[in-house]
Amino acid sequence: MALALQGFTFLQQYATSWMHGKTKTSSMALNLGVLSSAQINAAGVIHPAETHPDVNLYAIASRDASKAKSYAEKYGFKKHYGSYQELLNDPDINMVYVSLPNSMHFEWTKKALLAGKHVLCEKPFTSNAAEARELVKLAKEKKLVLEEAFHWQFHPAAHLFRSILDSGKYGNIISTDAWMTASPGIPEGDIRWQFELAGGSLMDETYALSFTRYAIHTPHPPKTVLSAISRPSKQDPRVDAAMHAHLLFASPTDPNRSIHSRIYTDLSRSWTFFGLVPRLWELPSIEVETDTATVFFYNAMMPHVYHYIAITDKRTGKTEYRTQSFRRAGVGR
Amino acid sequence: MALALQGFTFLQQYATSWMHGKTKTSSMALNLGVLSSAQINAAGVIHPAETHPDVNLYAIASRDASKAKSYAEKYGFKKHYGSYQELLNDPDINMVYVSLPNSMHFEWTKKALLAGKHVLCEKPFTSNAAEARELVKLAKEKKLVLEEAFHWQFHPAAHLFRSILDSGKYGNIISTDAWMTASPGIPEGDIRWQFELAGGSLMDETYALSFTRYAIHTPHPPKTVLSAISRPSKQDPRVDAAMHAHLLFASPTDPNRSIHSRIYTDLSRSWTFFGLVPRLWELPSIEVETDTATVFFYNAMMPHVYHYIAITDKRTGKTEYRTQSFRRAGVGR
Repeated sequence: MALALQGFTFLQQYATSWMHGKTKTSSMALNLGVLSSAQINAAGVIHPAETHPDVNLYAIASRDASKAKSYAEKYGFKKHYGSYQELLNDPDINMVYVSLPNSMHFEWTKKALLAGKHVLCEKPFTSNAAEARELVKLAKEKKLVLEEAFHWQFHPAAHLFRSILDSGKYGNIISTDAWMTASPGIPEGDIRWQFELAGGSLMDETYALSFTRYAIHTPHPPKTVLSAISRPSKQDPRVDAAMHAHLLFASPTDPNRSIHSRIYTDLSRSWTFFGLVPRLWELPSIEVETDTATVFFYNAMMPHVYHYIAITDKRTGKTEYRTQSFRRAGVGR
Repeated sequence: MALALQGFTFLQQYATSWMHGKTKTSSMALNLGVLSSAQINAAGVIHPAETHPDVNLYAIASRDASKAKSYAEKYGFKKHYGSYQELLNDPDINMVYVSLPNSMHFEWTKKALLAGKHVLCEKPFTSNAAEARELVKLAKEKKLVLEEAFHWQFHPAAHLFRSILDSGKYGNIISTDAWMTASPGIPEGDIRWQFELAGGSLMDETYALSFTRYAIHTPHPPKTVLSAISRPSKQDPRVDAAMHAHLLFASPTDPNRSIHSRIYTDLSRSWTFFGLVPRLWELPSIEVETDTATVFFYNAMMPHVYHYIAITDKRTGKTEYRTQSFRRAGVGR
């Protein structure tokens, strides 16, 4: 089902790529280089760039030179390179999109920054915290923009979600509960099961953590990890098939309060309860409890496919349902 | 459904009253007096007393003398009184069971203690904390036993639940989530909607709080009430139709940790989601999250009718289901 939906999302993205007009490139446009010929490129950056006047689809690199060439022809990149470093050496490129396997994010983001390029790096950002810190430090020194590619945060539905929480209308946040699961599970040979490629449920389904930090709206990491328990993969116990975490964040609105956050990620969740009753399949979502309400963002991960925000006021018992599309927000065509 | 189940429980209790044998009364038996002719008496104390050799069904009081007489004849009480105070004046009575309306619990429990009787008082104990403190203080001074009648705590399933949590096998408790709701709701004229009679969801469905304190196994009240929001009744805004509370308890096993507890009570919960999709009806239950597991006690309120305890180990993803009946615990006949 997760895979089916992923397939549907790609289909929708391809459909959109035909339906949307291409804007004229402005005189201010920056030249974009894409590192890898990953499937995510079309949805992740190529079609969005086509609608943006300030981005030039400039160059693409693959270790397979012929693949880079055919990719460039298909999507209209001006240049193509048979190695990633060659692309980085091109002085006309202003920014790069890194869509390499997770384990290569650190190496190539670092090389891109050293080459003076702004970087948009696919999630998960790096394989560990030390690598992340090093990249952030380097980007600051070089005065370059460095961003982890969590697209959902730029959807108007996410902005509506945060404006509801930030409004103060429902008081302070007390707790959050976020999840992302895959049933019937990611196939055995998938790169997400490979420790060396930075696989695992928390790395791949890091959206759950992203929803949480976005909702709490704090620049700080959790002050305490109360619990973080993984269910090791049967193939490789170094890889987490599932992760349950219970984090304690300092409230950004009231220093005397803490926010309890539960996170649950699972790459192979059981299909049933009791081995019998089918389990409802849940899209990646977050529920936030505030003083006077619960705010539930259903399918926060892919609001462009389908989503709703349900606000239940504890004082009235009433639930209000909200959605926010691109067009209604006035930013579509 | 709540009412249907309540009806079923009473039916089961009546059936049990025919099926169970009556034990012989021991020479050590204490004389019990019952204050009120409430419907709960049979299930709450009369049938249990019939199986207990150390309890004599001694006297019953009602404001209606003829009612007290017919009640005494039906259940085999030796004496009957047409006023509560007359019963308390009987020097042969050792203990009383108070099943008067909530608002009268304080007055008659106090009078019973002053008359030197041990007291079993129906839940909710009193109408407010000041009354509760006064009664506890008085019972201590008089060296009398004073107990709130939460029967579920004496069921072997509750002991199993607590032994699982206390075993340390799953680490410390991180959070709890307890609820009790009534759909389609308690009828309008019910005493539970009367402010003067100490009505309201938190008073009537105080089981949710009882489950929580029992699970945490602490003698202390919550150290902080992070949030306590009621949905006022339409008939009388002083009565809470529903209550959402978020409490912070000090962990009894680790003074540096807090336990977050959510409580939800609702006397008239909506039947549907979106006004369309039927909502699954949930029996009063509690879910406890520990470091390495979730422990879910389904129908903790009436384990004698039906219950299960589901332990999901976060490390294995496996769920183990447990039940504990009276007979299997070796305390049945």
